[in-house]
Amino acid sequence: MEYYSGQIAKLIEELSRLPGIGTKSAQRLAFHIINMPGEQVEQLASAMVDARKNIRYCRECCTLTDQELCPVCRSQSRDHRTIMVVENPRDYAAYEKTGKYDGVYHVLHGAISPMLGIGPNEIRLKELMQRLQGDVNEVIIATNSSLEGETTAMYISKLIKPTGIKVSRIASGVPVGGDLENIDEVTLLRALEGRVEL
Amino acid sequence: MEYYSGQIAKLIEELSRLPGIGTKSAQRLAFHIINMPGEQVEQLASAMVDARKNIRYCRECCTLTDQELCPVCRSQSRDHRTIMVVENPRDYAAYEKTGKYDGVYHVLHGAISPMLGIGPNEIRLKELMQRLQGDVNEVIIATNSSLEGETTAMYISKLIKPTGIKVSRIASGVPVGGDLENIDEVTLLRALEGRVEL
Repeated sequence: MEYYSGQIAKLIEELSRLPGIGTKSAQRLAFHIINMPGEQVEQLASAMVDARKNIRYCRECCTLTDQELCPVCRSQSRDHRTIMVVENPRDYAAYEKTGKYDGVYHVLHGAISPMLGIGPNEIRLKELMQRLQGDVNEVIIATNSSLEGETTAMYISKLIKPTGIKVSRIASGVPVGGDLENIDEVTLLRALEGRVEL
Repeated sequence: MEYYSGQIAKLIEELSRLPGIGTKSAQRLAFHIINMPGEQVEQLASAMVDARKNIRYCRECCTLTDQELCPVCRSQSRDHRTIMVVENPRDYAAYEKTGKYDGVYHVLHGAISPMLGIGPNEIRLKELMQRLQGDVNEVIIATNSSLEGETTAMYISKLIKPTGIKVSRIASGVPVGGDLENIDEVTLLRALEGRVEL
């Protein structure tokens, strides 16, 4: 016995393929979509198709964008001699939201992970090394503070050191507003090691 | 400063309008969609648009379906003289999944809620009363066990009683596999009141 008619079942099935969306959420979303104004559904559907069709990698920094260069790489007011290396476009956006960083980015699209079989060739490292042949002052490594992120940071710094370009790593420590008692020991130790004189 | 290029921002915005999807999930979904095979994105998009366009209410039971009658109302092998009243199509599907109910349904599309300003006229009650003029043996009220669901059940039973048709309410009690110590007092009392002789 089918529980839903064909097109509802199809929509639920397609939605439940998305990451983090189980059968229950897919059902909830499907019925929401069916009750949405038709025009709004068309907008959502075409936003998906358009984005999928037109989004490509920025020629400079490899982030995802709908033009040849991303807004940051296009900007004249940014310091193109400082490159922040991040794992993915969301990290790029996270630093952009601070509004205080005025360098440019390089998006690796992943991190080195021997466990998952992701080596240096699977991420956008070659593109980074190519950029470093130009006029670059500093490379700031802002990969995640996870095992993979740290491995990647170490790997990149070893690769860049011989070129004489300055390499730095973003600080690791207690998050602002963080309550010490709720923070894991590794972070607490990192914060201690990285203490700054006042 | 824009964090994402236009089409990514548009997709994130459209996705974050869906219920239960915040900005973070919308970002995650958007990047997933951009990396999906183009064909799969087209399928998802057209499943949405098609469902929105073609889904309507079943002429008999008011559930959502893409044909004039839903699979259950169409079926010859179901007992069309027993009607189970549920709040929404998901509840219909939940009972269908048990595979043991062989009557038909009536979907109210909501429950009476004075708090939210939803009265008897805002749900599909008139349609139910019309169906009862035909050959009906029993009405099983399977609205949720919430304040609104109980109110609706009481209201419907008072409406049907004068017609002489049998009205019943699904049992309320401890869920199968439920651990007594984790169950709220109201449910425990309900289970006690509704005890069955062995």
